Amino acid sequence: MTAGGAAGGEFAILDRLRHRLPGPPAGEVWIGDDAAVVRLGPGLALLTTDMSVAGIHADLALVDPDDLGWRAVAVSLSDIAAMGGTATHLVVAAAGPPATDMDLLLAGVAEAAESHRCPIVGGDLSAAEAVTVVVSVVGRVDDEPGPVLRGGARAGDRLFVTAPLGAGAAGLRTLRETASEADRPPSSAAVHLVEAYRRPRARLVEGATARRAGATAMIDVSDGLAADLGHVASASGVGFRLDHVPVAAGATLEEAFGGGDDYELVFAAPDPDRVTSAFGDDGLAAPIPIGVCTADRGERRYDGEMLEARGWEHRWG
Amino acid sequence: MTAGGAAGGEFAILDRLRHRLPGPPAGEVWIGDDAAVVRLGPGLALLTTDMSVAGIHADLALVDPDDLGWRAVAVSLSDIAAMGGTATHLVVAAAGPPATDMDLLLAGVAEAAESHRCPIVGGDLSAAEAVTVVVSVVGRVDDEPGPVLRGGARAGDRLFVTAPLGAGAAGLRTLRETASEADRPPSSAAVHLVEAYRRPRARLVEGATARRAGATAMIDVSDGLAADLGHVASASGVGFRLDHVPVAAGATLEEAFGGGDDYELVFAAPDPDRVTSAFGDDGLAAPIPIGVCTADRGERRYDGEMLEARGWEHRWG
Repeated sequence: MTAGGAAGGEFAILDRLRHRLPGPPAGEVWIGDDAAVVRLGPGLALLTTDMSVAGIHADLALVDPDDLGWRAVAVSLSDIAAMGGTATHLVVAAAGPPATDMDLLLAGVAEAAESHRCPIVGGDLSAAEAVTVVVSVVGRVDDEPGPVLRGGARAGDRLFVTAPLGAGAAGLRTLRETASEADRPPSSAAVHLVEAYRRPRARLVEGATARRAGATAMIDVSDGLAADLGHVASASGVGFRLDHVPVAAGATLEEAFGGGDDYELVFAAPDPDRVTSAFGDDGLAAPIPIGVCTADRGERRYDGEMLEARGWEHRWG
Repeated sequence: MTAGGAAGGEFAILDRLRHRLPGPPAGEVWIGDDAAVVRLGPGLALLTTDMSVAGIHADLALVDPDDLGWRAVAVSLSDIAAMGGTATHLVVAAAGPPATDMDLLLAGVAEAAESHRCPIVGGDLSAAEAVTVVVSVVGRVDDEPGPVLRGGARAGDRLFVTAPLGAGAAGLRTLRETASEADRPPSSAAVHLVEAYRRPRARLVEGATARRAGATAMIDVSDGLAADLGHVASASGVGFRLDHVPVAAGATLEEAFGGGDDYELVFAAPDPDRVTSAFGDDGLAAPIPIGVCTADRGERRYDGEMLEARGWEHRWG
């Protein structure tokens, strides 16, 4: 972690970031020393890290650097949400070529951190060919009920998603379409989809509510419902039958299944009434039932048809 | 954070990494879910993140991907050492172009983590144009004596370094020289310097001992002694007079002052006898006295001459 006082460059940018952020409580040290010093609450700690690279995870011809920064924060916080945890602190490592507007990129990081109430406590800036942002998050979760893992779903558990899916993928499609038709203003529905792609929200409140409502397994929809639900099924040793997949207005069923970039949560829970009342008690919209876990671990079915996992992964050789 | 079960690519590489690592204690979850679940000890938590980019922080024509991975871990752990803390868990985000030997890179990460006794608990892999490794570390430190910050040095405090400096820079110079003279084998002294560059060690034990020995300010020598000691002086509002800067065998005084890449610790402490006896009690070589902190915050002197800060930082604009 780096910080200091020289004018211009890395130290000045971190200093400007520090001054736009709230300061630490007494006894803690945030940006400005070798490492941040923080006091974590009781319970279990959660740790996660995610990398966002321009040209791979987002196209800077379609979104601005502050959107890339926002998305990098939301993606990492979404992993904490998927455990049912609370995100308490984040550190950011950012890099880019000399022309990068690093202040703008970090403004997006700061806006997302503030919006999700998770303070930035440290950072490192570097040169790199491609704009790259890595957000690492520390969170916490109670011992009882503990974190919601991927592997706890049982046959008979009901499956839920926190909202209709596909808005992120539809937003990306809209951005690509409007980029090639610059004179046609997007419709207001399209603006909503684009916002879902540019500024996704991690479902931290929903994840914690699902945990308290007895969720047995949970994951965030980052690679697409079919792929992410496949991870849950594999880890839990169950199959699933979906009877209803809610599609966001303006998105397609294909985008809902395979698009990813939604950061809604999908979870399994044995007692639907308990889920509905827990979400209601917390002032949240009821999660949407989509199907059921089955004992046949080879079964991955939607509307009677077998699904192929439609997600993707990076490959090296 | 990403994990799963598909064959080949990202998930298979993370799976292989997971299987070569020790498993978590009961009640913890390491690589394989949305976030790692760990139990942190009492006291204060420390957090840091650092990015290493091939072509910027290390040249893959001179070192191998596993060296880049090792160095990325050491650089981040060194920030925990500089607080006097214990490194308890790390997460790694790694990226590179399709031809990258990601297994080899992660082998270096795993070797460094094992060697420093800090387990890898999570990871994320991505595509990118340049090989990039970001290591984020969680550590802990007692409340009393608490973490050693940069800003606690007082006039009259003595300054120490944990070992002679310049080996990292001299190792890099040696690599560059031997790359252009491939038929001349390096001397054994040169092999030692190259090793210091390829596989630096974070001085975690020394940092914790310095903290218990009353260190008032501490930093790791990553950008060069002059620059890093300048950060301590600025943060503490003191000056310094150096009378002896120990130079590693085979390195130059210039490399000791400005080279960086050493990851030794420099610290201020009021009581030299207490420092010597604490390091002796812990079975460590005595740290080397290099000078004293002074009340004149403009004073940055070596052997009677004023120093210019010789470090560097990344710039954007």
